[in-house]
Amino acid sequence: MSKPSLARGTRDFGPEQMVKRTFIFDTIRRSFQRYGFQPLETPAFENLSVLMGKYGDEGDQLLFKLLNSGDFSGKLTDADWQAGSKPLTNKISEKGLRYDLTVPFARYVVMNRGTLVMPFKRYQIQPVWRADRPQKGRYREFYQCDADVVGTDSLLCEAEIVMLLHDILPQLGIEDFTVKINNRKILTGIADMIGAHGQEGTLCVAIDKLDKIGKDKVVDELRERNFSEESITLLDPVFSLTGGLNPFGELRTWLASSEIGLKGIDELQEVWTMVESLGLKNPRIQFDVTLARGLSYYTGAIFEVKANNVQIGSICGGGRYDNLTGTFGVPGISGVGISFGVDRIYDVMEELNLFPENQTISTKVMISNFDQEAFRYGLSVLPKLREAGLNAEMYPDSVKLKKQLDYADRKNIPFVILIGSDEMNTGQLTLKNMKTGEQQKGSIEELIAAVI
Amino acid sequence: MSKPSLARGTRDFGPEQMVKRTFIFDTIRRSFQRYGFQPLETPAFENLSVLMGKYGDEGDQLLFKLLNSGDFSGKLTDADWQAGSKPLTNKISEKGLRYDLTVPFARYVVMNRGTLVMPFKRYQIQPVWRADRPQKGRYREFYQCDADVVGTDSLLCEAEIVMLLHDILPQLGIEDFTVKINNRKILTGIADMIGAHGQEGTLCVAIDKLDKIGKDKVVDELRERNFSEESITLLDPVFSLTGGLNPFGELRTWLASSEIGLKGIDELQEVWTMVESLGLKNPRIQFDVTLARGLSYYTGAIFEVKANNVQIGSICGGGRYDNLTGTFGVPGISGVGISFGVDRIYDVMEELNLFPENQTISTKVMISNFDQEAFRYGLSVLPKLREAGLNAEMYPDSVKLKKQLDYADRKNIPFVILIGSDEMNTGQLTLKNMKTGEQQKGSIEELIAAVI
Repeated sequence: MSKPSLARGTRDFGPEQMVKRTFIFDTIRRSFQRYGFQPLETPAFENLSVLMGKYGDEGDQLLFKLLNSGDFSGKLTDADWQAGSKPLTNKISEKGLRYDLTVPFARYVVMNRGTLVMPFKRYQIQPVWRADRPQKGRYREFYQCDADVVGTDSLLCEAEIVMLLHDILPQLGIEDFTVKINNRKILTGIADMIGAHGQEGTLCVAIDKLDKIGKDKVVDELRERNFSEESITLLDPVFSLTGGLNPFGELRTWLASSEIGLKGIDELQEVWTMVESLGLKNPRIQFDVTLARGLSYYTGAIFEVKANNVQIGSICGGGRYDNLTGTFGVPGISGVGISFGVDRIYDVMEELNLFPENQTISTKVMISNFDQEAFRYGLSVLPKLREAGLNAEMYPDSVKLKKQLDYADRKNIPFVILIGSDEMNTGQLTLKNMKTGEQQKGSIEELIAAVI
Repeated sequence: MSKPSLARGTRDFGPEQMVKRTFIFDTIRRSFQRYGFQPLETPAFENLSVLMGKYGDEGDQLLFKLLNSGDFSGKLTDADWQAGSKPLTNKISEKGLRYDLTVPFARYVVMNRGTLVMPFKRYQIQPVWRADRPQKGRYREFYQCDADVVGTDSLLCEAEIVMLLHDILPQLGIEDFTVKINNRKILTGIADMIGAHGQEGTLCVAIDKLDKIGKDKVVDELRERNFSEESITLLDPVFSLTGGLNPFGELRTWLASSEIGLKGIDELQEVWTMVESLGLKNPRIQFDVTLARGLSYYTGAIFEVKANNVQIGSICGGGRYDNLTGTFGVPGISGVGISFGVDRIYDVMEELNLFPENQTISTKVMISNFDQEAFRYGLSVLPKLREAGLNAEMYPDSVKLKKQLDYADRKNIPFVILIGSDEMNTGQLTLKNMKTGEQQKGSIEELIAAVI
């Protein structure tokens, strides 16, 4: 007999939180559908061969691995035991929990490419798991809400992502946000221009931390990673480019001799133009040349969304990846996607008090339970309430009325029907409004009409 | 570079399946809410101390266990390695994937009993995982939809479960089903009556197989498990009790000297009476004294639902458990619940062709993409469709119209808007009905009105 506890870094979501979370999920889902995305769900665990090597070394470490079933240790040799945890893992585990929704999606696309209608627009709303050290706001299980298009390199998809963000976030009450956009091709161009050709990956990882650790520490990190002093000096103007009135102009001059860098700028400008044609009112987009994002598979536009005036990391992120399916042997399927971080969005909405008041997932009417006779009478009333579409229940035990009303009160049930001997004789039931305390009498049909 | 595959026993759910599954989930969820149940979600993995010992030895074996993160093998001794898989598991794994929704629910109730409003009615719709040998209709990941009430032993809860089943299944088109009901107390009484006191657990496991293996093999199993020939002979009338006109009467005589057995009959008759008071039309309930159910935690009523005329196991199951929280140190919280097996319900609905035709999760209108100029024009049309609440998209690439129409066709998009130079000059767009092939011209407002 043990006192039970939650596994570290995981959470239960009780009724109150579920109502709020459902509001977020439903809002996002409706908009995904209005933009032509179709639902997909993939299994919680995948073969490790699918997951490993897609998220970098750190990601591989953070994958939750499932112990093989049955006699997993019988065939192992002493050498296997002594080889250390990493090689041993391969011998006793062949499955892992999904780390994000993008890699399983790429796996799905590759396995179903013969029958999929391309371009394929899918959304996916499921939990993911990471064996991160738990801390405030970081959990080992959390939901992602992703929308991706694969099978086209049309920049319309990028423009649609911008529209989708401006559609969904205000519906959640989040009006003050910034969609930061950059393009990996620009970062490649910058690496070229500062004489660090081929090192854009390292450059991205370092620059990505600018927000958190500041310019000086980014420069330190670049030194540690063997960027030359000359490269670092050449990089200097990049730090001051963000947010100007015409950021592209200045950068265009600076990147004039980098073909790929210029292509990145062209792509972003095209997205800007399309968004304008799509009639976006009050756009909250900002080009940020220092936006890099950690994941290695991005190759084009990258997005990140911050809620302004709230101390929290990005609430959405995404970008274009040209070769994710290539790791599964099928190159040439370009894709682009956006992911909504529901847990952080939830925190933002809590902090700004943005959840709507009226909650729909609760009982509307409770029938009280006086005694055996009233109980029988109540049984005939209950189905009528439900047939009228009302969420309804009868208190199951004949306990003191005070206790029953206390139950209704704590469960936020707005109406209680009281059935006493008077009521049974006349057929005139009493309806109590739990907020105002007011009572009214009427037939069950009249009370239903009063409540709906 | 590897050809990717799904982990054994798992499945992807693409758009078509998702539409159907969503229909099932939404129907069940709405009814749960109308009966006053509130939503709960618990984490995918739990500490093994929570899960182990709740499902019997076989269940413990079928739990998916997570390998500890980091250097899990560094501190192990040679003795640990050589102890065999079972004891070794305890050293390198402390978490497992949930096996059902009932035990995590009991854990939640115990951890939150200080603040929970009792009786607590919750529903939970989440996947569970079992390391079973995969076979047709049996998967390693599948959803359960559970509704449970804890904190009351009122038989109203049992009656409500019967009502809930009769509410939900017909909404799914499943009209021809049988709700089999028994009570563990009756099985205890039977064990007493045949002189096998205290052996009702073994008796239940054997009798539970009657449907699958027949009476003779059940008797063989009882012999193997050391039931005496006398006991087995005494048991004989029980096999022929099911389904008579007044099954309780005969059984009541037979169980006359078993207090607990009679209590079981009383409870069932009370449920029968309540269901009648609740006005159930066309009840499909059947007392089945041989219904036992495998799980050991049941103590009162047990339920199982079969879809008639379909070759498939039970589609719902549940029962009352008096001491599930007792295993976590908090005795005396009685509960009762029902679980809907969505995968089997899905299979039944497929076989009987019960899914509704009109699918809501798809694009309603596609804008075609002729050339650069039409594309720009289309960008201004697209947001108007979405503002009108229509699911809409524009084909992202300027490819041949045939390919675009083929895309719409395969994605079941019913309407396509064609924009050519004529259309742009006059503002009169062309709307093509993809089913009939008909085309009509009109302003965007007129076309929206035609489509809604």
